[in-house]
Amino acid sequence: MISKIKLVYLILFISIAGLSSIIPQKKEKANQISDETKSCIDCHESVTPGIVSDWKLSRHSQFTFQEALKKTPLEKRVSSKSVSDNLNTVVVGCYECHSLNTKNHADNFEHYGYSINVIVSPKDCSTCHIEEYEQYSGSKKAHALDNLRKNPVYSALVESIDGVKQVDKLNIKNLPASHFSKNETCYACHGTEVKVEGKKIIHTETDDIEVPKLTNWPNQGVGRINPDGSYGACTACHPRHSFSIEVARTPYTCGQCHLEPDVPAFNVYKESKHGNIFDARKDLWEWSAVPWVLGKNFNAPTCAACHNSLLTSASGDVIVKRTHDFGARLWVRIFGLIYSHPQPKSGKTYEIKNKDGLPLPTTFGNVKADEFLLTKDDQAKRKSEMEKVCLSCHNTDWVEGHFEKFDNSVMEADKMVEASTKLLSEAWNEKLADNKNPFDEPIEQRWIKQWLFYANSVRYGSAMGGPDYAAFKNGWWELSNNLSEMHLMIRLMQNAKK
Amino acid sequence: MISKIKLVYLILFISIAGLSSIIPQKKEKANQISDETKSCIDCHESVTPGIVSDWKLSRHSQFTFQEALKKTPLEKRVSSKSVSDNLNTVVVGCYECHSLNTKNHADNFEHYGYSINVIVSPKDCSTCHIEEYEQYSGSKKAHALDNLRKNPVYSALVESIDGVKQVDKLNIKNLPASHFSKNETCYACHGTEVKVEGKKIIHTETDDIEVPKLTNWPNQGVGRINPDGSYGACTACHPRHSFSIEVARTPYTCGQCHLEPDVPAFNVYKESKHGNIFDARKDLWEWSAVPWVLGKNFNAPTCAACHNSLLTSASGDVIVKRTHDFGARLWVRIFGLIYSHPQPKSGKTYEIKNKDGLPLPTTFGNVKADEFLLTKDDQAKRKSEMEKVCLSCHNTDWVEGHFEKFDNSVMEADKMVEASTKLLSEAWNEKLADNKNPFDEPIEQRWIKQWLFYANSVRYGSAMGGPDYAAFKNGWWELSNNLSEMHLMIRLMQNAKK
Amino acid sequence: MISKIKLVYLILFISIAGLSSIIPQKKEKANQISDETKSCIDCHESVTPGIVSDWKLSRHSQFTFQEALKKTPLEKRVSSKSVSDNLNTVVVGCYECHSLNTKNHADNFEHYGYSINVIVSPKDCSTCHIEEYEQYSGSKKAHALDNLRKNPVYSALVESIDGVKQVDKLNIKNLPASHFSKNETCYACHGTEVKVEGKKIIHTETDDIEVPKLTNWPNQGVGRINPDGSYGACTACHPRHSFSIEVARTPYTCGQCHLEPDVPAFNVYKESKHGNIFDARKDLWEWSAVPWVLGKNFNAPTCAACHNSLLTSASGDVIVKRTHDFGARLWVRIFGLIYSHPQPKSGKTYEIKNKDGLPLPTTFGNVKADEFLLTKDDQAKRKSEMEKVCLSCHNTDWVEGHFEKFDNSVMEADKMVEASTKLLSEAWNEKLADNKNPFDEPIEQRWIKQWLFYANSVRYGSAMGGPDYAAFKNGWWELSNNLSEMHLMIRLMQNAKK
Repeated sequence: MISKIKLVYLILFISIAGLSSIIPQKKEKANQISDETKSCIDCHESVTPGIVSDWKLSRHSQFTFQEALKKTPLEKRVSSKSVSDNLNTVVVGCYECHSLNTKNHADNFEHYGYSINVIVSPKDCSTCHIEEYEQYSGSKKAHALDNLRKNPVYSALVESIDGVKQVDKLNIKNLPASHFSKNETCYACHGTEVKVEGKKIIHTETDDIEVPKLTNWPNQGVGRINPDGSYGACTACHPRHSFSIEVARTPYTCGQCHLEPDVPAFNVYKESKHGNIFDARKDLWEWSAVPWVLGKNFNAPTCAACHNSLLTSASGDVIVKRTHDFGARLWVRIFGLIYSHPQPKSGKTYEIKNKDGLPLPTTFGNVKADEFLLTKDDQAKRKSEMEKVCLSCHNTDWVEGHFEKFDNSVMEADKMVEASTKLLSEAWNEKLADNKNPFDEPIEQRWIKQWLFYANSVRYGSAMGGPDYAAFKNGWWELSNNLSEMHLMIRLMQNAKK
Repeated sequence: MISKIKLVYLILFISIAGLSSIIPQKKEKANQISDETKSCIDCHESVTPGIVSDWKLSRHSQFTFQEALKKTPLEKRVSSKSVSDNLNTVVVGCYECHSLNTKNHADNFEHYGYSINVIVSPKDCSTCHIEEYEQYSGSKKAHALDNLRKNPVYSALVESIDGVKQVDKLNIKNLPASHFSKNETCYACHGTEVKVEGKKIIHTETDDIEVPKLTNWPNQGVGRINPDGSYGACTACHPRHSFSIEVARTPYTCGQCHLEPDVPAFNVYKESKHGNIFDARKDLWEWSAVPWVLGKNFNAPTCAACHNSLLTSASGDVIVKRTHDFGARLWVRIFGLIYSHPQPKSGKTYEIKNKDGLPLPTTFGNVKADEFLLTKDDQAKRKSEMEKVCLSCHNTDWVEGHFEKFDNSVMEADKMVEASTKLLSEAWNEKLADNKNPFDEPIEQRWIKQWLFYANSVRYGSAMGGPDYAAFKNGWWELSNNLSEMHLMIRLMQNAKK
Repeated sequence: MISKIKLVYLILFISIAGLSSIIPQKKEKANQISDETKSCIDCHESVTPGIVSDWKLSRHSQFTFQEALKKTPLEKRVSSKSVSDNLNTVVVGCYECHSLNTKNHADNFEHYGYSINVIVSPKDCSTCHIEEYEQYSGSKKAHALDNLRKNPVYSALVESIDGVKQVDKLNIKNLPASHFSKNETCYACHGTEVKVEGKKIIHTETDDIEVPKLTNWPNQGVGRINPDGSYGACTACHPRHSFSIEVARTPYTCGQCHLEPDVPAFNVYKESKHGNIFDARKDLWEWSAVPWVLGKNFNAPTCAACHNSLLTSASGDVIVKRTHDFGARLWVRIFGLIYSHPQPKSGKTYEIKNKDGLPLPTTFGNVKADEFLLTKDDQAKRKSEMEKVCLSCHNTDWVEGHFEKFDNSVMEADKMVEASTKLLSEAWNEKLADNKNPFDEPIEQRWIKQWLFYANSVRYGSAMGGPDYAAFKNGWWELSNNLSEMHLMIRLMQNAKK
């Protein structure tokens, strides 16, 4: 019998002082790897060793679809009912993913005797994960690229920000934004349209290889349009090639794009009580468990817990179902637009038409485009879904009090934006600025900050309990200070015009 | 005998690949749970499973007061000498806390046959933790709400920031700040006054329940005024219902409120060498140990180590005693006010009267309200207490050099504020701004930034070794840039007035 | 045989609920500690217990040079071939480091019978780590102090920021910056020149001790000039007295100085996919392994992985060699100067002379000082070194696409700075500002922000995949907004001048 104290020393030895690695060196199931995948690994283990070792860490290298199907309904991680025979009894290796639906893949090429797609798309992932694919495909995330570029208002904003400016004396000229610049900024999160423009030769250490010439690549934005025509990038959250649920579930993943100043969700979370407990306790949590059991696997909400994971109580009751439409538990939209409004009915927000004929959910004066937005009943259903998560730890009175405060914050933040809109209108009326492009002059940019940064921050700070973001950090302080600076700016411009 | 290498695999298996949970699933001591608490759990295990599982993780579910008393003086976590018999031999469950001092609790109600308080207050916690209660009750934290709302200067600042602004042509009107807005910003950290306004019916999934109707709720601010008249919220740092010392001790807890731009303590810590070591090593530290043994349980200072924990050396010598007056080791106040000054004698800072008759520790021109502030002797005693922590790892020369730099930073930051105060006075003198409300015009808001954001940052950056906050991040760069922009703003306003 | 389930409970017990410490309490090798070091410990174990326990955690307390030499070439952590006999067979204790090269140490003093240097310098560390010392000594980091203070342009910037300003009516006077202020800001990272000005008596709890009187101390800046004349501070990254490779390797260490707004490397990393994986997985990584094995010891790049560590694949192939010239894998310089440019040939950048005769790598109008900068060939070599790291996980096409985007970002960010330079020139030409000091007026400070904060952020965001920093967080948004506010500022100043 090993003594407690020896065990302590052994564990200390193991965990800190000694062995060369504590990353679990899983053995892939060699006899269940397809011959094709073995061929891939033969070369790639030496040319790109990092991704091969990532894959070996993954569940994909450990389980066949057949095995994955045997899990109980709540434990199941695949949602398709069946796959073709050749995929059923092998683990999910390189070839199994990179050889799917080749006819639709403009990025397909012949690679050492195999027909390979460069990009594995959500459509390909749907082979095993059909429900996740379907939920995602209808969401705002899937259409995040088109929601920018097919919307002339947003396109103008992108061009105004990302275009190189040329100065000649005191004239500023805005050049069209390069695709590079858009790809490194807005489209890095929203996604690019990856196209194939013929072939090219790449020179590697070992060989010259002909590969498809991809444009707008690399990119992992959530609304990427893939060479097979599908929308999205599962790898935005489940990074190659471990495709880990653990990584995807951490708030750091969401925090790559949902962060201040425009979408301060991650920042607010970090300074909330929930984030405080997460930071202090996360190492004790079981990040890979399916279902995710409240109080057993984790002790405080995370982004995933509230917005998409399947949660159960310790006694096995389902609290909320899994969804890969990340807006499915949201009823009001609190960022990215001039005023808050009910969530849109469709993920394709560029199809909205407001009273002014623009693809925006409200007018400049805050009239809602009701027919494109959730009804009060639909909003109530979504809110009640979210509240199921809250009510697992807080009583009804608490939760009601929380959302009463939140509703007020949303409303008052809108009023502060309205105040700035009126000042901007005055500036336009007095010809102190030109509304042809509403995004390129200082007074207009102050107005943008009011809704895109500060009103958002107040709403997020209120939604998730991060008071600094409702106060001094991009919150009420800035809303009030920016408004008074807009006012002074107008006075000074009036004087300069005299 | 289990082999080392097998053990490695077992541990890897356990900690990463396998079991559904690594959160310790402590068994509460069933035979020592009171019958009343058992009744609570019977329902709440299904209606609010999260908090029941939190409690099961807590020491409260593991130990009776009688057992807690048996610890050695340095290891003891309770400070009261005795409790009533009914509390002595049961673990600290729902009922034990929610049924105390019911007569003083305006939030008491009858709940399925039991007399229950909604809110457990610091006064209730003092049943077992009397010293912590007494230390805390006299501190600035306990009076954090009154220190804002009973001080007309601060009230005006809050109203100026949090009030909705209405714009009519070019006139801006500031409406009174709503209680919602104050509760989501300033009062979220400072605390609200929770009152009871009759009863209300809440509709839960299982029942309709009559509960006290609380106002300004939920809130966990440090200066919350509770329905039993007591001040503070222990849950601000020891979150419900694990009441964990581990969570409270992490800098993330302090970082919920002490963060940039107004109180950048957490931000500065994170980029200091101390924070660097914390981030790299924290997973190896023993966060729950009492006393906290330097070099054995932790290797670098944290907020708690310097400001309130009981620390001993490995040989058992006491370095500093525990205190729940978080200012007890502080001698100079470096944030939140126009100029730095000796710490106030009392936690009730609204009782200060300066030479101008205002409840501020200095005048506008930086004359100190000496009689309300620590004497040089008292300051020296406090500083020497703090230095005991520093001297555990640094030699005397080092520590002296550090505080010599700090003293200079405090002094020079004040001078930079004084410079901005002079510019503001000029603006007022020339009627470019109206000093009736000193917080609502652009030139005034620039002045606020100078002391509330930038001078603070320089002092914090210097106090804790985070040079970026003393330099480009809200530090000297902003102090100098903001001053020159104030100057230009005045010139332009002068011109516009002509 | 211990059962799995019991083991689980034991481990849970050990790691969370129970033992007073999980920091490995290594036993120093008592018989191999020199007598001198034993004397040091005898006192310092009680007067500065923290640093003694840090040392006990270190490899220095565990291994003699003789033992360290026996490692295989890739595993070796010492680079000197031999040391003197008295150092060879004892562990590396207090005396072994603090008694080296005493004749060159102006900070040497007699301390209880021993001849002790206060500061252990890189020159001292080179006794065992000669290669690291030599690589470092030629780097920009080693000369970071002189690169500021011997460069009149940078000196003027430092003085403009750090000097106390006095206001008299509407005149602002900039006093010379105090050495304290410089030491707490710029020099905290860049390093101070530590000098010895005689002796002083310090009063400790136990004794009055005569010690060297050091100036500009304490400091651990990377370019510190030490009392033995050597450059640098190994402790900037390897903190006293554990001198840990684990701590040095974490991005938190680099993040003490390389952070926003001027050098947002750490911030960008945290929000990149690489940082996302780091944050989610870091606890499973083996931070102390030498060599650092990709896929076995770590799964995603960190600062150290890309910029200085010795990396091998699981099969033992060297990916990149270790270097302590942290610029050795860099080809273009993207921060700290007006325009990007090829990395300088020498670490002493104050020796550069551009076409205007200034020690800057470009002129104000962006003409490069070519003879002081890397040739295209040298740049290509450096880039190819970095790409070896990228190519371990990404294919050639991906890596090429990434750097194509990066090159464009660097170029376009420069163009945006050029636009602001033209506006500033206009302001100077029209006498709206005075170019005698180009750093102290609002329009000039706006120009500084353009290159020192915003253009840098775009380049870093692009280099490491943190799109927020290329977009709204100090990126393109600010570049465009700041430019238009510069333009308005000029218009308003023109008007005020009329």
